[in-house]
Amino acid sequence: MSESNEVPAQFKDVHVLERAVDKLSDEYLGIFSPDTIQRYVFESYATLGRTAKVRLYLATLAVRFASDRLAALAHAKGARPSKKPQVLFVCVQNAGRSQIAAALMEWTSLGAVDVRSAGSLHSGEVSSTAVALLGANGIDIKEAYPKPLTDDVVRASDYVITMGCGDACPIYPGKQYLDWDVADLDGATEAEAKVIYEDIRGRVQSLWKQHSD
Amino acid sequence: MSESNEVPAQFKDVHVLERAVDKLSDEYLGIFSPDTIQRYVFESYATLGRTAKVRLYLATLAVRFASDRLAALAHAKGARPSKKPQVLFVCVQNAGRSQIAAALMEWTSLGAVDVRSAGSLHSGEVSSTAVALLGANGIDIKEAYPKPLTDDVVRASDYVITMGCGDACPIYPGKQYLDWDVADLDGATEAEAKVIYEDIRGRVQSLWKQHSD
Repeated sequence: MSESNEVPAQFKDVHVLERAVDKLSDEYLGIFSPDTIQRYVFESYATLGRTAKVRLYLATLAVRFASDRLAALAHAKGARPSKKPQVLFVCVQNAGRSQIAAALMEWTSLGAVDVRSAGSLHSGEVSSTAVALLGANGIDIKEAYPKPLTDDVVRASDYVITMGCGDACPIYPGKQYLDWDVADLDGATEAEAKVIYEDIRGRVQSLWKQHSD
Repeated sequence: MSESNEVPAQFKDVHVLERAVDKLSDEYLGIFSPDTIQRYVFESYATLGRTAKVRLYLATLAVRFASDRLAALAHAKGARPSKKPQVLFVCVQNAGRSQIAAALMEWTSLGAVDVRSAGSLHSGEVSSTAVALLGANGIDIKEAYPKPLTDDVVRASDYVITMGCGDACPIYPGKQYLDWDVADLDGATEAEAKVIYEDIRGRVQSLWKQHSD
């Protein structure tokens, strides 16, 4: 057992992650231990790394993902509760449908809702069709990335909306679960994709209207 | 936002998980906080739930997965170090190749190595071909299940052996990384599957021989 590879480029990622652990440890002082934060950051890196197509920004995305998950966990624990409704959209890849729904809910509610999205089998990148459809309506999701469904974001949610992956979602008491029968964007023609987009838009608007009435 | 589903069967899983949290909290008293253990158990449940084909044993498998991850973490932290070499096999699905390699290493070393396996995109069940190939040689892996690659098991490892998913694995200093060019069992004919099995068997034996020499 003596064979060994040469030193890989990923070593510098470890430094990025370690700096993030220090920063987040300050931010969550008294709420989460540095140990917990280290685990969240490195676990998020391993999780996103499993599917990442481009590794260049992997450490940066992992830090964002860990930071979002810690915020969800702090809310769920009641340590830093947000007063806004917490909405989670889940589809299979977190590449198309759930990204569109999340972006439209954010846009429709003008930021009055904390919106998250995730995938049961998250893909390596957001669908270019989803980016284009939202872009044509003036909504920019170029910073979005596919994330796996994690326990923390489910726990933080008041509303969990699944599309094509209902079974994959842990069910906890006290939450509203909705299952939307929305067609998959993957493999859809341009015309079909527009119909799917409008379908999601209508559902998001109706959900928001019910809530704000 | 008033629509609601009826109470789902998964509610009873939550009780199974909560009992496991209590039990593991006793076991890891002074090493991990109950909060940490709760997160590991529920996060493992969410992670396996994303791909589970059968949900009947999901809570049980999640408890095993969480328990194995906590043992890996305790070793990595030096809190409960094992004296055995720690070997991790990773392939894409953790359904075929890495399951075979792990079972053969366990068998070859007669338990003198702590062996783990994981997948970059873990599938819902272990390949029936892998079960049959090992079964024909008297090795039973009916209790095995596909697991995603997590940071804790990489950290705990002295040797990380990847097959078809080299990029997916976080790289940390001080470990031996090997990439084995082994064909995928998925889609292989019966004859091809046997060749793959023999290929893996030869590599495992040679690795073990190098180590024990």
